[in-house]
Amino acid sequence: MTFPVVGMVGGGQLARMTHEAGIPLGIRFRLLSDTPQDSAAQVVADVTVGDYRDLDTLRAFAAGCDVITFDHEHVPTEHLRALEADGIAVRPGPDALVHAQDKAVMRTRLAEIGAPCPRNRVVTDPADVQRFAEEGDGFPVVLKTSRGGYDGKGVWIVRSAAEAEEPFRAGVPVLAEEKVDFVRELAANVVRSPHGQAVSYPVVESIQVDGVCDTVIAPAPGLPDELSARAQRLALTIAREVGVVGHLAVELFEVRGADGSSEILVNELAMRPHNSGHWTMDGAVTSQFANHLRAVLDLPLGDPRPRAPWTVMANVLGGDYPDMYRAYLHCMARDPGLKIHMYGKDVKPGRKVGHVNTYGDDLADVRERARHAAGYLRGTIDE
Amino acid sequence: MTFPVVGMVGGGQLARMTHEAGIPLGIRFRLLSDTPQDSAAQVVADVTVGDYRDLDTLRAFAAGCDVITFDHEHVPTEHLRALEADGIAVRPGPDALVHAQDKAVMRTRLAEIGAPCPRNRVVTDPADVQRFAEEGDGFPVVLKTSRGGYDGKGVWIVRSAAEAEEPFRAGVPVLAEEKVDFVRELAANVVRSPHGQAVSYPVVESIQVDGVCDTVIAPAPGLPDELSARAQRLALTIAREVGVVGHLAVELFEVRGADGSSEILVNELAMRPHNSGHWTMDGAVTSQFANHLRAVLDLPLGDPRPRAPWTVMANVLGGDYPDMYRAYLHCMARDPGLKIHMYGKDVKPGRKVGHVNTYGDDLADVRERARHAAGYLRGTIDE
Repeated sequence: MTFPVVGMVGGGQLARMTHEAGIPLGIRFRLLSDTPQDSAAQVVADVTVGDYRDLDTLRAFAAGCDVITFDHEHVPTEHLRALEADGIAVRPGPDALVHAQDKAVMRTRLAEIGAPCPRNRVVTDPADVQRFAEEGDGFPVVLKTSRGGYDGKGVWIVRSAAEAEEPFRAGVPVLAEEKVDFVRELAANVVRSPHGQAVSYPVVESIQVDGVCDTVIAPAPGLPDELSARAQRLALTIAREVGVVGHLAVELFEVRGADGSSEILVNELAMRPHNSGHWTMDGAVTSQFANHLRAVLDLPLGDPRPRAPWTVMANVLGGDYPDMYRAYLHCMARDPGLKIHMYGKDVKPGRKVGHVNTYGDDLADVRERARHAAGYLRGTIDE
Repeated sequence: MTFPVVGMVGGGQLARMTHEAGIPLGIRFRLLSDTPQDSAAQVVADVTVGDYRDLDTLRAFAAGCDVITFDHEHVPTEHLRALEADGIAVRPGPDALVHAQDKAVMRTRLAEIGAPCPRNRVVTDPADVQRFAEEGDGFPVVLKTSRGGYDGKGVWIVRSAAEAEEPFRAGVPVLAEEKVDFVRELAANVVRSPHGQAVSYPVVESIQVDGVCDTVIAPAPGLPDELSARAQRLALTIAREVGVVGHLAVELFEVRGADGSSEILVNELAMRPHNSGHWTMDGAVTSQFANHLRAVLDLPLGDPRPRAPWTVMANVLGGDYPDMYRAYLHCMARDPGLKIHMYGKDVKPGRKVGHVNTYGDDLADVRERARHAAGYLRGTIDE
């Protein structure tokens, strides 16, 4: 048997969906999961339960794998360097991944590349936040811990130096950024392989609610071709310059320039399959998960083009009612074309437990179908 | 956690692909597999290794499941009745499944339903085969063991009574059928749920080589609407009358009637996902695997409509060269829209080890892409 073994670190839903995409490829998929109950561990045959922060655990896990990749960006950079020194193929590698792990490193590198970013710099204490504000348009200012944040965690919007105490308590560098008055949020998703092939998905609009992704529309409605092409070129440039292998999500702000024209600024980077790419599971010829696997295996990449004029993804969050399976009856009967993707997670209020995809020719209809299904599953819609 | 446990008996590729389809549904999937190396056992988390012919093994496996379904049709009918008597939901149930297990029972029931079939009857010995031939248009005659055949095994085409010894050696009833001079083979695939909802996929053309399915074209090219509708109605009628739950494949012969019009005759029934439905994985809104699961769980069925004007499936058979993974490089680079589905099986000459799907607007192109990829993976095409 010559089919390779892919080891994925992290047992979340991204690993679950990567396994799903790997089954048709005939590859062997090995999982390092925190617990046997994690989302991916429920559906993968070959699971190692262990702590990704422990180098010996990582080494033992990696020993039988042809390549290691990631469900999340939390593996310590020094561990990844140790694995590489052992001769393990780590994809994306630590030199690339650090740009998704450390926001300060990311901003420095993006500046070098010439990628447009919000005004930013590392700040040392609340007084320094005050100076940062005065250097620009004043408060509010966005503060982010350079490491460890996700889904709005590790991010604060402060209106004064007095409000800026908390971010410094974690003892990690804090990055200050101007609060961008954006028109909307976009994401430019690309996949790059070790030999430098890259594909670009259509630029999508991402709608956040309370700091959590709520809806993704593919492609971003009304986005001028020129701006779409610029966003895709930017993502491809970042992928190349940073040396990304696998899926790269470039989260963007669309802003109105002084002359009224649209501009883009880079908000965040993620080097793994990403929530803004879940629509590709039903909406693109090749999903982000399949292409991530093809990239880390250095296989030729699959066609990223959309299969329908519009695809909409809506995240399913936990509500007050734990029995989402029962809600399938109404959702499936109402919309036979609805694509449900559940993660096997216990329902907790506000927790991402799945997503739905809808696609079709009429954006308003496609969007309404996704909104209804996500709301019905959560329990906020009851008809 | 209220999500149900589906138990599938048999660890072949159909179970593998059913698991793949079950992951997004968030259900629990449990497998009864002959060995830990079986196709599905490689990718499923919850595997019981055991012999499906042993009732105690089946009972222990079924005890933790909400419903039992099948990768193959070889579980003894009496065992299924015993499980039902235990209160287990067996879908399809033994009273339906027997029609796919026993060709003599199938023919009798189809005659009662009024489904058009080749002339047939059970024969007792070679002399009786001679009489069967003389009752019709003479030899050749097709002989089939009533139980246990698949992919051309258990089927003989005999030109004389003297050639008709072997089929009787197994000691199971032998069915004689006229050898149909068909125009082509079709398949009408439907899915039916316990509460009687049913969906029908487009009728496909199935091209066999040496008794094994080689290519499936969806929809069947040039099939008159009236004949397509008749085939779909026939499959839906059989599903209802026989009480099928889950996927039913009705393999058909298209024949030229005395007046030159097209007619259909039922060749075989399969009550599980079927090779003639593999195109639905990439070519239909809802795959046969997803709909089989929805049916056995009594969930509303998904949209069976095609997503592209043409989808072609080509089976990948083992060739002389065992390293199919290496062939991915050329196939994927040549055709970024190619959909490969491999089963994790060791390559043996002539063994079904995977399939490819292609889709698009131009049938000749779509078919050529599938033919090339299947041939290149097998090793019969080297450019």
